Amino acid sequence: MSNSIGRNLVFTSFGESHGPATGGILDGCPAGIKLDYDLINSDLRRRSPIGKKATTSRVEADQCEFLSGILDGVTLGTPIAYLIRNTDVKSSDYDDLKEVFRPGHADHTWAAKFGIRDHRGGGRASARETVARVVAGAIAKMLLAASNISVEAFVTSVAGITVESDPASFSGKISASNPISCPDQKIAGLMLSEVEKNHKSGDSTGGVITCVVQNVQAGIGSPVFNKLHASLAYANLSIPAAKGFELGAGFENSKLKGSELNDSLLKPNISAASLGGINGGISNGGIIWFRVAFRPAASIAMEQKAYNSEGKMVSLKIRGRHDSFFLPRAVPVVEAMTALTIADYLSY
Amino acid sequence: MSNSIGRNLVFTSFGESHGPATGGILDGCPAGIKLDYDLINSDLRRRSPIGKKATTSRVEADQCEFLSGILDGVTLGTPIAYLIRNTDVKSSDYDDLKEVFRPGHADHTWAAKFGIRDHRGGGRASARETVARVVAGAIAKMLLAASNISVEAFVTSVAGITVESDPASFSGKISASNPISCPDQKIAGLMLSEVEKNHKSGDSTGGVITCVVQNVQAGIGSPVFNKLHASLAYANLSIPAAKGFELGAGFENSKLKGSELNDSLLKPNISAASLGGINGGISNGGIIWFRVAFRPAASIAMEQKAYNSEGKMVSLKIRGRHDSFFLPRAVPVVEAMTALTIADYLSY
Amino acid sequence: MSNSIGRNLVFTSFGESHGPATGGILDGCPAGIKLDYDLINSDLRRRSPIGKKATTSRVEADQCEFLSGILDGVTLGTPIAYLIRNTDVKSSDYDDLKEVFRPGHADHTWAAKFGIRDHRGGGRASARETVARVVAGAIAKMLLAASNISVEAFVTSVAGITVESDPASFSGKISASNPISCPDQKIAGLMLSEVEKNHKSGDSTGGVITCVVQNVQAGIGSPVFNKLHASLAYANLSIPAAKGFELGAGFENSKLKGSELNDSLLKPNISAASLGGINGGISNGGIIWFRVAFRPAASIAMEQKAYNSEGKMVSLKIRGRHDSFFLPRAVPVVEAMTALTIADYLSY
Amino acid sequence: MSNSIGRNLVFTSFGESHGPATGGILDGCPAGIKLDYDLINSDLRRRSPIGKKATTSRVEADQCEFLSGILDGVTLGTPIAYLIRNTDVKSSDYDDLKEVFRPGHADHTWAAKFGIRDHRGGGRASARETVARVVAGAIAKMLLAASNISVEAFVTSVAGITVESDPASFSGKISASNPISCPDQKIAGLMLSEVEKNHKSGDSTGGVITCVVQNVQAGIGSPVFNKLHASLAYANLSIPAAKGFELGAGFENSKLKGSELNDSLLKPNISAASLGGINGGISNGGIIWFRVAFRPAASIAMEQKAYNSEGKMVSLKIRGRHDSFFLPRAVPVVEAMTALTIADYLSY
Repeated sequence: MSNSIGRNLVFTSFGESHGPATGGILDGCPAGIKLDYDLINSDLRRRSPIGKKATTSRVEADQCEFLSGILDGVTLGTPIAYLIRNTDVKSSDYDDLKEVFRPGHADHTWAAKFGIRDHRGGGRASARETVARVVAGAIAKMLLAASNISVEAFVTSVAGITVESDPASFSGKISASNPISCPDQKIAGLMLSEVEKNHKSGDSTGGVITCVVQNVQAGIGSPVFNKLHASLAYANLSIPAAKGFELGAGFENSKLKGSELNDSLLKPNISAASLGGINGGISNGGIIWFRVAFRPAASIAMEQKAYNSEGKMVSLKIRGRHDSFFLPRAVPVVEAMTALTIADYLSY
Repeated sequence: MSNSIGRNLVFTSFGESHGPATGGILDGCPAGIKLDYDLINSDLRRRSPIGKKATTSRVEADQCEFLSGILDGVTLGTPIAYLIRNTDVKSSDYDDLKEVFRPGHADHTWAAKFGIRDHRGGGRASARETVARVVAGAIAKMLLAASNISVEAFVTSVAGITVESDPASFSGKISASNPISCPDQKIAGLMLSEVEKNHKSGDSTGGVITCVVQNVQAGIGSPVFNKLHASLAYANLSIPAAKGFELGAGFENSKLKGSELNDSLLKPNISAASLGGINGGISNGGIIWFRVAFRPAASIAMEQKAYNSEGKMVSLKIRGRHDSFFLPRAVPVVEAMTALTIADYLSY
Repeated sequence: MSNSIGRNLVFTSFGESHGPATGGILDGCPAGIKLDYDLINSDLRRRSPIGKKATTSRVEADQCEFLSGILDGVTLGTPIAYLIRNTDVKSSDYDDLKEVFRPGHADHTWAAKFGIRDHRGGGRASARETVARVVAGAIAKMLLAASNISVEAFVTSVAGITVESDPASFSGKISASNPISCPDQKIAGLMLSEVEKNHKSGDSTGGVITCVVQNVQAGIGSPVFNKLHASLAYANLSIPAAKGFELGAGFENSKLKGSELNDSLLKPNISAASLGGINGGISNGGIIWFRVAFRPAASIAMEQKAYNSEGKMVSLKIRGRHDSFFLPRAVPVVEAMTALTIADYLSY
Repeated sequence: MSNSIGRNLVFTSFGESHGPATGGILDGCPAGIKLDYDLINSDLRRRSPIGKKATTSRVEADQCEFLSGILDGVTLGTPIAYLIRNTDVKSSDYDDLKEVFRPGHADHTWAAKFGIRDHRGGGRASARETVARVVAGAIAKMLLAASNISVEAFVTSVAGITVESDPASFSGKISASNPISCPDQKIAGLMLSEVEKNHKSGDSTGGVITCVVQNVQAGIGSPVFNKLHASLAYANLSIPAAKGFELGAGFENSKLKGSELNDSLLKPNISAASLGGINGGISNGGIIWFRVAFRPAASIAMEQKAYNSEGKMVSLKIRGRHDSFFLPRAVPVVEAMTALTIADYLSY
C-alpha cells in the first residue's frame, strides 16, 4: 500500500527513473468516461522540461501507453494500467554516485531502509516517478469535470518573492509566455531573474505552489480522521521536495485573533476566505485553496562535500541531468494529487 | 474508516461531547505491555483545563475506564477499548445554537454533510473528542519507550510571539510553573500577557506547536506514498483547528538556495537539521521535528453576527464553556497523534 | 484492523468474555436512521441461550448500552459505539484451565501468537464476542430494509440430518415453537433428538446454516478481488467454529456438467438458482443464498486427554458453562455478518 | 481496491483478455530477493494450455516483461510491475456475443454493474486475468521458501470421482505423465476418461482442488476478523468458477460429534488433522490444508438457449477458444492465491 493512494479511487504507482518504464494503475474509475487524451498529453507536456530550458537539460518523450481498462477510448470500470517508457536515460552518468550519499537527498535513508537501491538517477526516489501521477491526475480531472470542479495550481513564491493577491483571482491567469506558471506576469519576471542567477552559480531555488479548487459542493470530507485538508496534505506532501502544507493562510492565521478570522464572512454559511474553504475537515462550498512549500532541489551543480557509504567525506560533483528549479514542473503534479484526492472523496 | 487512523496499530475514536461517553479502541497493540497508568493520567491532566484558569472554565473529570484488552494491567494483544464519561456538560447552554451556524465553526459543513447534528457543545466536532486520542497516544508512547523513542511537544508561537531557538534544545524544558508549555520561560510570560489581553476583550488567540521526536532509527518510513512526514501531517491536521504543517523549517526553507540547505550537514549521513530529520519520506536517524499551526478558537465570547439555518443574519452570543486559548491543551494531543503514527510505522 | 471488517461501513469488535464488557463500534452508518431497538433486542434474544435449555446453562442479560452516534434515537452519521457488560461470569470455573490447552480449541494457537491469554471462558476467543456482532448486524439490517432487502438464516443440517428443499422456500418458516431454527418442523424434531442424545452422553453436535438474502438488485459486487461471495465467505468464516462456505450448492455443483448447471435458467438474465445468485462476484438480481459449515463445539462435558503448557498429557474435565449445540445461537450471527457485508457493498 | 488483495504485501491485477496486456503490481516485496525466473516460467507453463490438448485449443505465449522493482535480477523493495502481452487473441470470434448473455457467465451481472463491458473473450471476467496472479504468486513462493514453507495444490475430485487419501501424503505426487495434477495416478485415469467423455459431447466438467501448505509455524493468523482461513477463503474464492471453500474436511466435520474430532490428536498441541491446521483463525504448526470447489466451465460447445440484451431468448453456439475442463490450469492459481495470502500474513 506504500505505493498506493486513495480509498475507492485508488492510484498505484511504479517505476524507477532508469528502469524500463514508469507507470501506474488507476482502480475505481467509473465505466463510461470518454478519455480526453489531449488533457493527458497537455498535462504531461506541462510536467516535461520542454520550453523550460533555463532550468533543465532533459528531454523526455513521455509517451503514455494504456494497457487495460479502456475500450474504444472509453473507460470500462476496470483498472486502467499504463506505462511510460524511460527513454532519455544516461545511466553511466551516475556510476560515481553508487557509493556516495548526495547531500539533502534520500540516498542514505533508502540505504538504511532497503539495504539496496537503484542509484541511477535516483531510482524510485527520482521525481521521474511523478510522470505516472500526472496521467492518473488527468483522468481524475475528467471525473471532476462532470461536477464542474476545476483544479489549478500556480507558482506563487520563489526564493521569497511572493504573489500577495487573493488566490480566488488566480484562475486562468497563466499564459504560454509565462514559463514559471506564476499568476502575476510582473512578479514572474522577478522570480525568473532570481532562478537564473542561482542556476548560473550552480545553485538551486525553492518556492511555494498555491492550489485553487473551485465548485466543490459543501459537505465533502470527513470529521475527525480523514479530514479533507488532512488528506490534501497527505497527498501533496508525497511529492518529492514538498515539506510544508497550509490550508488557506494557515501559518499566518495562527497569529490572528478569533474575531479577525471570524469577522470576514464572505457570504452566508461560508467562512473566511483565508480559512481555505474547509471547516472541520468538510468543504464549505467556497473556493478551496492551500499552499505547498518546496525546498530547493537537493542536486546542485557546484561541488559539494558528501559522505560515502564508508562514512568518509569526499568531494562530489553531481553529473547527470537535473533541474535547478523544478517548481513549474511540479505544478501539474500538485494538480494531479489534488484532483485524485477530491475525486476519491466524491466517490464515497 | 473515517474515524480510524493507522495501518497495523489502528486507533478508532468515538463520542459526542454531550453524549454519554467519549472513547476509543486501540487495535494492534502487542501483548505483554505493562500499562503505565500514571502516564495516561498525567497526559489526561495535561489536556484537561485544570490549572489553566485563564483560558477555560471547564472542569472535566476524565476518568478512563478500560473495557477490554487488558488483564492484570498487562495488554493481551486484543483490542483495548475504553471510555471516558462526559460528566461536566451543560447541554441547555447550547439550546439557542440549534439553528445558528457559529462563525468559523463546522456547524454548516456538518449540516451540509449529515443533514443532522448534535448541536450540544459542538457534538462530535468538539475538541472534547481529543480526550480519547490522549489515552491511545499514551499507550503508543509506552510502545515507543521500548525503543527509547521520546515524543515531546511545545507551544512555540502565540499571536506571533515566537521562540526562535533550536528545537533540539527544547527537550525537558517545561516546568510546572509554565502554564503555557513553552520551552522558553521568558517568552512564555509575553505569550501569556497577550492571551490574557485577548481573553479579557472576549477574543481568542492562536499559535504554533512544535513537536520533537528523538531516537527514531534511520530507515523508518515509506517512499512515494506513505511518506513518514506526510502521515505525520495527516495525523496532526486531524486535530481540531490545526491548519498548517511543516517538516522542519518547511516554509522558510522554501526561500533558501540548495547550497544553503545542503551545506549544513550535522554529521555523517544526517541531513541539515532544518530539514526535520526525514529525507525522501524516511527517517534519517537524526531528531525529527515539525510544526503545526493552529487558528485561534472559533468560539469567542464577544457578540458576533452569524447566519442561521434559514439564511438570515442574526446576532450571536456564544454561551457554554469554551477555551479562548487552547494550545497548551493541544500539546498532549499533538504528542498523541505523533506517537500513534510513529508506533504504527514501527509495526510494519 | 484484525478486529475490524468492512470498507465504508466498518464494524470493529472488542471484548473478552470475562472482561468488563463486550462491544463494538459501527462507523460509516449514515445519519438520520431511526433505530429499531426492538430488532436489536430480538436479535440479541435469538442469540442468547434463553429458551434453549437443552443446549446451554448460561443466562446472559445482554443489555446493550449505546455510548455515541445517536441522538433522540436517530443516528448522527458518527461512530455508533456500544457495550454489553459481561455479568453472568464465573471466572473461578476456569482456574484449572490456565495451563491446559483444551482439545480442538484455540488455546495453544493463541499462546503461540500472543504468549499471553485470558484463559477465563476462552477470553476473546469465546463466542461471547459475537454478541457485539449481533448489535451491529441489526443496525445493518435497518439499512438494508430501506432497500427492501431481507437476510434470514436457518439451521438446515445437524449431525448429517439435512433439509433438502429449495432455500427460496425457507422465508418466514420459523415459528416460536421451533427451538432449532430449522425451516422444516418435522426434520427439526429429528435434529433435536440427535442433539439431546449427544448432550446426554457429554458430547457436542455440529451442523450447517443456510442464509438467504432477498431483493439485492443486480450489479452489487466487484470483479476479480472483492467478489461478493468471497466477502460473504470471509465474513462468515470469521464466526467461531465456522469451517466451510459454499455459494449455492457449491460443492455439489462441482460434480455436475456445465450443461446441467446452465440449463436450469429461472428467468431472463438470472443464472441457475443453485449457483446462489452471484455470477462473477456480482449479484444477478435473484435470491442470494449460501451455506456455512460449523464443526461441533470443541468444549465437551466428557473427560478428555489434553496437553498442558509443559507438553504433558493430562486428564481434563471442562467445567464452566458451554453449549453442546450452538447452531441456533449462531443463526443471528450469520445474519449479522451477512447484513454487514451486503450493507457495506451497497455503500460504495 | 477491488483489484487489489493483501495488507502489507499487496497484489494489484489489471487487464482484459483481448486488451493489449494483462499484468500486475506486487507492492511490499522486501528488497534483496533474487528472482527465480525458472519458477515463474514453470508456474506460467503449468497454467498454460500446453500439454493439455484434451481440454483447450489455445496456445498462449505468456512472456512476462518486468517493468520495475528489479535491478540485476534482485528485488529493490519497490513495486514490482509486469505485463504479459495478449498475443493469441481472435477477437472476431466473439462478435456475435456482443448482445447475448452467455448462460452461467457474468455477462449480465457485469452489464448491470458497469453498463459497458468488453465482450471479447470475456474481457476482464475471463480467466485470462489469472496469468497475472501466477507471476505474483511465484514471487510470494520465493518469499515463503526463505521460511521453508511450501504450497502445493492438487486436483482431488473430478465429476464426483474423488481421491480419499490423507492430504498430508500428497506432497510431490505429481509426475509429468499426469496431465490432470491428481496425486493418485490411477484415479487420474478415471478422471481423464470422464473429462474426455464430456468434452466429446460438447460439455464441461467441474471438480475440487486441495491445497496443502507445509511448515507454517504456529501463531500465524488473527483472531476474530482476519482469521487465516477466512483470508484463504477470500483469496481462493476470487478465482473464476470457485464456489466453495472448506478448511480441512469442513463440511464432513459438521456431521461429526465433538469427541470424534477432538479425539484424533496427532501430537502435542496440534489439533485433529481434519481440522486443517488452523484453530481459532491461527495456524497450529501442523499441515494447513483446504479444498476449493469449482463449478464446470460455463462455456460449453453444445448449442444453448440464452437471453440477449433485449430480453429475448436466442439460440447460442459459443465460438472462440475455451476450456471444457480447466482444473489443472487452476492448480497454480490456487497455489498463487495461497502463497500471496500466507506471505502477506508473515509480513505483519
